[in-house]
Amino acid sequence: MKAVRTIAELREQIGEMKAASAKATIGLVPTMGYLHQGHASLIRAAKVKTDIVVVSIFVNPIQFGPGEDFETYPRDEARDLAAAEAAGADLVFLPSVDTMYPKPTKTKIAVSEVTSGLCGASRPGHFDGVTTVVGKLFHIVQPDYAFFGMKDAQQVAVIEQMVYDLNFNVTIVPCPIIREEDGLALSSRNVYLSPEERTQALVLSRSLRETKEAVKTGQIRTAGEAKELLTQIIGESPLAVIDYVEIANFPELSPLAAETAILEQEESVLMALAVKFGKTRLIDNCLIQPKGE
Amino acid sequence: MKAVRTIAELREQIGEMKAASAKATIGLVPTMGYLHQGHASLIRAAKVKTDIVVVSIFVNPIQFGPGEDFETYPRDEARDLAAAEAAGADLVFLPSVDTMYPKPTKTKIAVSEVTSGLCGASRPGHFDGVTTVVGKLFHIVQPDYAFFGMKDAQQVAVIEQMVYDLNFNVTIVPCPIIREEDGLALSSRNVYLSPEERTQALVLSRSLRETKEAVKTGQIRTAGEAKELLTQIIGESPLAVIDYVEIANFPELSPLAAETAILEQEESVLMALAVKFGKTRLIDNCLIQPKGE
Repeated sequence: MKAVRTIAELREQIGEMKAASAKATIGLVPTMGYLHQGHASLIRAAKVKTDIVVVSIFVNPIQFGPGEDFETYPRDEARDLAAAEAAGADLVFLPSVDTMYPKPTKTKIAVSEVTSGLCGASRPGHFDGVTTVVGKLFHIVQPDYAFFGMKDAQQVAVIEQMVYDLNFNVTIVPCPIIREEDGLALSSRNVYLSPEERTQALVLSRSLRETKEAVKTGQIRTAGEAKELLTQIIGESPLAVIDYVEIANFPELSPLAAETAILEQEESVLMALAVKFGKTRLIDNCLIQPKGE
Repeated sequence: MKAVRTIAELREQIGEMKAASAKATIGLVPTMGYLHQGHASLIRAAKVKTDIVVVSIFVNPIQFGPGEDFETYPRDEARDLAAAEAAGADLVFLPSVDTMYPKPTKTKIAVSEVTSGLCGASRPGHFDGVTTVVGKLFHIVQPDYAFFGMKDAQQVAVIEQMVYDLNFNVTIVPCPIIREEDGLALSSRNVYLSPEERTQALVLSRSLRETKEAVKTGQIRTAGEAKELLTQIIGESPLAVIDYVEIANFPELSPLAAETAILEQEESVLMALAVKFGKTRLIDNCLIQPKGE
């Protein structure tokens, strides 16, 4: 595995690998670092599907809003390099902010509609920052496949929309959420949690699991009932402060009206949550397939 | 030369040509068709610099505003194919609106600042349409070089900014304005002009030529004086209705303050005009190099 920091070096390395085998495919795993087993699963998926696995590690300032955690976002380069190598990365790209933004960018890639609800509503401008940096990374790496975790389901939907609309020559591969044994979805931000918050945060996965089960067994039927049950279960944790609880079709992400029967939808239905524990904002979600899975 | 209408066909054709010679470079000449000698000069420039010359012909609806001439924009496919072949094109890409926009796009590429003045001020949203479609064409064709005429100087500046900010792996090649013998800059829109308008439209190139000469000989010195002289000369044509007359640095396109001495700038200075003759809006411009050419 090689670690490179400049765009020129990265292009040169990829060029050499492609020269050795013109048909070699490239897989990109874009990350913000502080790698956990969720990221490792993306890298392993890339290793299975593609010949050259590139992992990018970049905490992208333009996707953080004022007062968000850009400055304090956890970073550990040495550990990340070891984790990327162990999972099978061939190249790790660790650009500085100056490398990615030598001047403040005047150009943005912006997706509408899919970005208007959920995290897009709570974090204005966030997804413009995400699509802009992912577009840049796609141009730098020119991957055949790019791997994203479904924990950020809206991010997957937004990136898919961007790829479709702008004819990027890349296939997006969404990968399943990886969880701790007790159900907590892996996130680099979990390190922010106090032991008490960590325990109470289990309510996220539990609320999703129990609500999905209630839908599948016919105990509840509509989006409104699901939202109510999720809200009620999350409310059992006194430290939980709900940012949003939303039921939407996927990947369009239009919120379902309260009276809509979840299992009668043609498309998958996403139940998505963002909840704060102290200063830490966590997200989790699950998909319900049409007519049950 | 081959003409293709779908993205899949185009990618297949380019793939075959690249397979025959992996090091072949690709040149893209994006056009809206109704090709004239200005376009032909771009195609010839591409032929000199690159191995595979792709000409796209697409009247892009999303760069036209309400009340603009999308519907009536001149089209002549048979003549265009002959002109592209004569100039040396290898592939002509003629997508339908449905091919480029199978659904209304939710994604836009938007450049700020460089788009705020000149045509950007007169045609709100125009450049978002341009950068979005050029981004799409770059993704579809994956050119090494792309060729644009300097008649749309702001378009060149905007595309260069997009390429820089988003790390597109393409080099933009700006090509000189091509003019009729009497000075009129070639434009597909010139066919709209009545004989009388056609004659009076010569005032555009004449005003630029005379003002540049006045700057170079020291007769006038400042941006304010240049603007005044341009406005005065254009005013000699009774049919001319000025949209804008602007003096700006290039490629940033910040307008120069009236008292700024043109020849004392570090960068090139652009004198740019948009003027209406009847329903036809024409643009023209010239660059003045620092300390004279």
